[in-house]
Amino acid sequence: MKIETKLTEMGLVLPEPLKVPPGSRITFAWARVYGQHVYVSGHGPQQPDGSMGPFGKVGAELSPEQAYQAARSATLSILSSLKRSLGDLDRVEAWLNVSGMINVAPGFVQTTQVMNGFSDLVIDLYGSDVGIHARTAIGVAALPFGLPVVIAAEVAISP
Amino acid sequence: MKIETKLTEMGLVLPEPLKVPPGSRITFAWARVYGQHVYVSGHGPQQPDGSMGPFGKVGAELSPEQAYQAARSATLSILSSLKRSLGDLDRVEAWLNVSGMINVAPGFVQTTQVMNGFSDLVIDLYGSDVGIHARTAIGVAALPFGLPVVIAAEVAISP
Amino acid sequence: MKIETKLTEMGLVLPEPLKVPPGSRITFAWARVYGQHVYVSGHGPQQPDGSMGPFGKVGAELSPEQAYQAARSATLSILSSLKRSLGDLDRVEAWLNVSGMINVAPGFVQTTQVMNGFSDLVIDLYGSDVGIHARTAIGVAALPFGLPVVIAAEVAISP
Repeated sequence: MKIETKLTEMGLVLPEPLKVPPGSRITFAWARVYGQHVYVSGHGPQQPDGSMGPFGKVGAELSPEQAYQAARSATLSILSSLKRSLGDLDRVEAWLNVSGMINVAPGFVQTTQVMNGFSDLVIDLYGSDVGIHARTAIGVAALPFGLPVVIAAEVAISP
Repeated sequence: MKIETKLTEMGLVLPEPLKVPPGSRITFAWARVYGQHVYVSGHGPQQPDGSMGPFGKVGAELSPEQAYQAARSATLSILSSLKRSLGDLDRVEAWLNVSGMINVAPGFVQTTQVMNGFSDLVIDLYGSDVGIHARTAIGVAALPFGLPVVIAAEVAISP
Repeated sequence: MKIETKLTEMGLVLPEPLKVPPGSRITFAWARVYGQHVYVSGHGPQQPDGSMGPFGKVGAELSPEQAYQAARSATLSILSSLKRSLGDLDRVEAWLNVSGMINVAPGFVQTTQVMNGFSDLVIDLYGSDVGIHARTAIGVAALPFGLPVVIAAEVAISP
């Protein structure tokens, strides 16, 4: 289990399954596996116990550095969902496409830097050949529950 | 025709092809079929006669419940495009990935609840195995023509 | 080289590789090739020398017509990345799915018209059979570096 070993060596912990806030229904799959592709729903940052957060707009409640860390946390949340769906994170053969959505305060445009929190971690873990991906990073008007960053992805897996 | 029978039983009607507002050109396909995948363009709510609407921002002109219904209407619009492209809605073997874009008024963050209008209907029609999908629901600054909700999707089809 | 011949006949020039602004890191691929699919990252308008721009919000700093031209410029930027990744633009067998993100000033909703700057050019170059695509065009709160338009795409290629 190469990727999980690396996570441990880096001192990183995959969060517990998301604790959905009371009154909310999750009517979709966090990761939809079909053939050799996995479609990963938008994930926000989570605490290790599975609760969501932090919350707030980047450029106001969160600094760029805090937003970078939130993107990194959302990446761990994605990895946690992939592990539950695939059993083994080593089954990911290629990261293909990634959408980063940043909950921006007026005037904040450094979405590229925020999403590097995702790309840096994925490439550290998987290396360039597997980990490299196409990416789009946009600033949006709102995210579910007031999350600062939400990341969605598509990956290819071994049969 | 299992899905269309269910639609009829539920009292739902697929809308006519979109009536594009005067002065607008649609230079893309509502559904792009390629191999065993269909890429579905962003669809908004429609009236049964094919006209667009309702319009407005969610959290201002539309209540959360009206937005849920608009997402449900956009889902019927997607199904109408899929039927015209595929001939038979039963050809959909798997809903894969869905993007929901909500035209939010400042402060509205319940995008998850709005997009349940899509997911509830698709899973009612197709069941969990086929209908389950990855999903992202974001709040955007503007949508074409001032639509309140636009939904895009990718599905897999039988040969 | 059919497509490049057409570009030349139309007087269009593919821009040089993007000159990334100082202090920014690009940690992703502009085009991720995997099997017979290419996932194209979000591209903005570029000058022929590779520098980014223009910048600004559509409906304020940019008119709708200038935004249409910016979408056309972003399309050339995408083609430039595809050429570097594929060697030959004729290898594109099908345009599949396109996301257009417009950096809108309050009240600007003509995102469909802006994105026709992309679709018109791709269909002029590739013809309807290859060039037709699913599309979504949304208005966002912010784009990297203050770009007015960013376009992402997925295409299918010959082996």
